[in-house]
Amino acid sequence: MASKQVVIVGAGFAGLNAAKRLGNVEGVAVTVIDRENHHLFQPLLYQVAMAALSPADIAVPIRSLLARYRNIRVLKATAQTIDVAHRKVVTDAGEIPYDYLLLGCGAQHAYFGHEEWEAHAPGLKTLPQATEIRRRVLEAFETAERETRAEERRRHLTFIVIGGGPTGVELAGAIGEMSRYTLARDFRSIDPRQTRVILVEAGPRILTSFDDRLAARAMRDLESLGVQVWTSARVTDVTDEGVVVGSEKIAAATVLWAAGVRAADIGRSLGAPVDPAGRVITGPDLTIEGHPEVFVLGDMSSRAGPNGRSLPGVALVAMQEGVYAADIIRKEIRKGAQISRPAFKYVDLGQMATIGRSRAISEFRGLKLTGVPAWWFWLLVHIYRLSGFRNRLSVLVQWAWSFMTFGRGARLIVAKDWQSYPEVAAAPPAFEAKVNRGNS
Amino acid sequence: MASKQVVIVGAGFAGLNAAKRLGNVEGVAVTVIDRENHHLFQPLLYQVAMAALSPADIAVPIRSLLARYRNIRVLKATAQTIDVAHRKVVTDAGEIPYDYLLLGCGAQHAYFGHEEWEAHAPGLKTLPQATEIRRRVLEAFETAERETRAEERRRHLTFIVIGGGPTGVELAGAIGEMSRYTLARDFRSIDPRQTRVILVEAGPRILTSFDDRLAARAMRDLESLGVQVWTSARVTDVTDEGVVVGSEKIAAATVLWAAGVRAADIGRSLGAPVDPAGRVITGPDLTIEGHPEVFVLGDMSSRAGPNGRSLPGVALVAMQEGVYAADIIRKEIRKGAQISRPAFKYVDLGQMATIGRSRAISEFRGLKLTGVPAWWFWLLVHIYRLSGFRNRLSVLVQWAWSFMTFGRGARLIVAKDWQSYPEVAAAPPAFEAKVNRGNS
Repeated sequence: MASKQVVIVGAGFAGLNAAKRLGNVEGVAVTVIDRENHHLFQPLLYQVAMAALSPADIAVPIRSLLARYRNIRVLKATAQTIDVAHRKVVTDAGEIPYDYLLLGCGAQHAYFGHEEWEAHAPGLKTLPQATEIRRRVLEAFETAERETRAEERRRHLTFIVIGGGPTGVELAGAIGEMSRYTLARDFRSIDPRQTRVILVEAGPRILTSFDDRLAARAMRDLESLGVQVWTSARVTDVTDEGVVVGSEKIAAATVLWAAGVRAADIGRSLGAPVDPAGRVITGPDLTIEGHPEVFVLGDMSSRAGPNGRSLPGVALVAMQEGVYAADIIRKEIRKGAQISRPAFKYVDLGQMATIGRSRAISEFRGLKLTGVPAWWFWLLVHIYRLSGFRNRLSVLVQWAWSFMTFGRGARLIVAKDWQSYPEVAAAPPAFEAKVNRGNS
Repeated sequence: MASKQVVIVGAGFAGLNAAKRLGNVEGVAVTVIDRENHHLFQPLLYQVAMAALSPADIAVPIRSLLARYRNIRVLKATAQTIDVAHRKVVTDAGEIPYDYLLLGCGAQHAYFGHEEWEAHAPGLKTLPQATEIRRRVLEAFETAERETRAEERRRHLTFIVIGGGPTGVELAGAIGEMSRYTLARDFRSIDPRQTRVILVEAGPRILTSFDDRLAARAMRDLESLGVQVWTSARVTDVTDEGVVVGSEKIAAATVLWAAGVRAADIGRSLGAPVDPAGRVITGPDLTIEGHPEVFVLGDMSSRAGPNGRSLPGVALVAMQEGVYAADIIRKEIRKGAQISRPAFKYVDLGQMATIGRSRAISEFRGLKLTGVPAWWFWLLVHIYRLSGFRNRLSVLVQWAWSFMTFGRGARLIVAKDWQSYPEVAAAPPAFEAKVNRGNS
């Protein structure tokens, strides 16, 4: 009997966990397609943006994660569309036929029809975006140090984070803390403690997915780090000068976007209905109507949770969905026929968000924690969940070190262009003019 | 008495060591100018290119290295020219006057009049270049895995390193080893052991600065890792197809350049004579003629060593020069007058080069080592010399882990552009065509 072809598009939490579950299973040949060569531990991405961790600490090559499964092939390619009628994935490296398809390509930032804001307010979904944010934040302090005009200096020391979900809270808290403690001793002309960090949220409160009491505590923690939290404040424009909130114009050199996501566009090529955020609407078994062989997982899919609302776009949901889909496929391949499928049921293990270096809020099966205990809990969970032993160890060393010294190990501004610097190439002519003047 | 203004341009080994020596010295105000925010430990840059270390492991923010010296100001700016007549440095952030100038801006790769080769054969002098080389090498294996045409696959598995100095030897050895051990188990369609790595050297032998016997041993070590060493082979063209050596055309997707350097162009603005490699010719006290206040240090300067040849462009020379210049300045400021300056004398502590994961050659005060002992010696010296404790610890953890597992922790291909992927944005139209076809 020929093996059944299972194609997994996207090696995020859903895809990777599905692949592992299908690894070395008889009768199954798996192809994992991803446009990157690495799996990204997205919950810690903001730590790369905030210079506490390096990209390699939160990213592991997909090939090495799956090397020991002989029935899994990894293809670095960009999936362009799904041809559901002919059961194949169209990629930039050719067409890949499938018997089962697992689609988990995640989401990207959405600017609600203002895509031109992206250049001024980057979002945080990929490693290049994280290093770009790091570059902008550190560069803003460097520019302020050089700047002699008070108003311009103030603009460079103003940071605006748009969106009061966990990512926005984590970014704003980290900038507040970095400027108060880490950078304070490094600069001579500026006092980084004069930094203004403003967290702007359109809704009436931040962290809406959390309990009221926990969210209020997070707000106080943010304020103690110097972060101003503006709720019920709607951003109406973002330019290279700053942000317009209602009728107020705030001059800010650095604006970060954490306000909304849109599912990966490839979901639309399925021909199934999508919700306003572009997520594919799936049945209780996470497949699309009429195609029990097509699973849509993680942030790409919209499926009702116990309270009628769609399940949140978090790693735990995606991981459980990947395992669920893989288990159905294993059973069906073993039986050689479609089974009666149980509905997917999310086991809610809780949620957490950190504020700065030693505070957090967390909800875990009814247990609510705040402050330092929540932060230690957060640390343990994230260290444990990091894929790959080397990373765990390296992250632990770096965190321990940062914790003791208030330092930020990865505080690098790296130029975007690898070729020789244009300034250097342009130097000789400028010099000639200069020397002539000097000698005359 | 007003403090004397000492301006240090370039926070490499020379500049940084001079700055530390002048730190908290009374009567001295130091400004350190660098276009980057970090000091780079260049001897380990090839390990970043070869995915064994992360950029943050070998780079430390200049501000944190110098934070405890209250008389040192760090300015992130690009120095454009030196106005020796008026004693000021012209930068993109204004003009900086000096009483003493220390110029140590290092070198960049030179293509001997074929600058158009750079796009096809990147050199290794900066972090962006290192991550670009890493991207190209890893991408070549990924492309070979996807490729079905035998000839194209072979082209992607051919790596050419031009230049048989320590950097070229280290790069070639690392590629040979990575393909034989690290990547061998990760790929399904290709056998990375079929990789061809060719080290091309125009001279009659590699590693000319080393003893004959050591160089011969390094060559055997390279060959045992599958590297072909071609000596007396002159590269006459580099294109995106590959390399022309003499009359032979070698198809290769990845070509790396380690064949020659040129001093930073800013040296020419001094008006002092320069050698063919652009290095400023200095007197025995490392200053230029007629300007005892202008020191030129490290890879930018050309000064005769004990054998009449210019001292090599290595970290040890630069460090000793930085300390030498700083000591003269300290003494003169204390005395309030120019002293009779002793000539700079290089204390030769030796040199070393590694070949792969556990072999090296080293010369240390007459002691010549090869193989595994030389590698351990190399490891100890480099761990010890890494600036900043966190990096030492992190590098040690990563090396230990790589050593045990043959893994390469930092094996990431990171996209160059941080904005949303064009492929994704372009997907919807393509999908519509597709679905229509599917339904018709």
